[in-house]
Amino acid sequence: MGKKVCVLLSGCGVFDGAEIHESVATLLALSKAGAEYTIAAPDRNQHHVINHLDGSEMAETRNIRVESARIARGNVLSTADISIDDFDALFLPGGFGAAKNFCSFAFEGANASIEADIQHLVQAFHNAHKPIGAVCIAPAVLALCLRKGTLTIGSDVGTAQALEALGATHTVCPVTEMVIDTDNNIVTAPAYMENAPIHEVAEGIEKAVNAVLALCV
Amino acid sequence: MGKKVCVLLSGCGVFDGAEIHESVATLLALSKAGAEYTIAAPDRNQHHVINHLDGSEMAETRNIRVESARIARGNVLSTADISIDDFDALFLPGGFGAAKNFCSFAFEGANASIEADIQHLVQAFHNAHKPIGAVCIAPAVLALCLRKGTLTIGSDVGTAQALEALGATHTVCPVTEMVIDTDNNIVTAPAYMENAPIHEVAEGIEKAVNAVLALCV
Repeated sequence: MGKKVCVLLSGCGVFDGAEIHESVATLLALSKAGAEYTIAAPDRNQHHVINHLDGSEMAETRNIRVESARIARGNVLSTADISIDDFDALFLPGGFGAAKNFCSFAFEGANASIEADIQHLVQAFHNAHKPIGAVCIAPAVLALCLRKGTLTIGSDVGTAQALEALGATHTVCPVTEMVIDTDNNIVTAPAYMENAPIHEVAEGIEKAVNAVLALCV
Repeated sequence: MGKKVCVLLSGCGVFDGAEIHESVATLLALSKAGAEYTIAAPDRNQHHVINHLDGSEMAETRNIRVESARIARGNVLSTADISIDDFDALFLPGGFGAAKNFCSFAFEGANASIEADIQHLVQAFHNAHKPIGAVCIAPAVLALCLRKGTLTIGSDVGTAQALEALGATHTVCPVTEMVIDTDNNIVTAPAYMENAPIHEVAEGIEKAVNAVLALCV
């Protein structure tokens, strides 16, 4: 039986939701490895909607779960309906959605607050000793929830300092690699926190996905 | 120098735009192969907006180019501004957007009309003997534009018959493979026209991308 992984999305688009390339690279790596995935997202509105062509804020509201369904090609579990027992691991792709819709890290850094459903979910997987993967800026969500752990967001000094202020230990890591914290069962990779081509981003994510699957009991 | 490929997107989401997994798999394969890609899309509204969670039509308008920028992570050329001389090849991922926003094939099958900018673009690449790749339902766009060519949309009999009514010759093909028409310089693959896991869809797309690059002069 393949491992069952819950992939937590924050919308659909790098500037206001889940980073699309990272999300697809995650699903692709899980599928290649023979794992089963279920996509989940909060059933509430995004922080805002960004026009990805010109960067402006749009006078619209979009629901995180509904937009995540574009990446999922259909069904997306509400975070409120996730049963931890159904899954062997949790995985968080990046994109500003992780730092705007799951928490306020994009705006407040180390002073950020975390949404209650996300805090509950990450803590529950962690308490159950189930591995958690996070890439790009999503390791900030882990730092906010757990206040510990060795992780990477690549090489950005300011972001790394904010994560350390939250109680995490930051390790510099190239985009094609990942960092495993076996004490805390978390795996992280830089992805688009580095300015890299998509195939290098996907290589690091595939290694992170495989490391998460290897940590599953 | 890497080959320069124009990737034509029809939005962002399988039911009203470009299929996201196919689009990302295309960019990933191009990047792995050392090609350069530029994303282009029409600068006009989508046919409609579909809630991808429940399938209902939403009372919204979204611009094809602006939504395609979510997959592009920023800049998307308008189809009106494409200079054929800048590119070695054209590639069309699928999704209902190809059959709803580029033409009316999703609604009218072999009686469909094609948007003028898409007709012009496909014909111009074809006239310049530059290869064109198309996957999933996007081969219908080629059939509508060229009224000839050997191509595949997988194994769906009704769709294959509509393509043959348009003057194309359909070849049944498994999801992990592709079909090359060297006479017409077109490469097609089934992608999500088959009910297959993402890694099999990506395998067929990677083969199609590599075949298109091999056809570039």
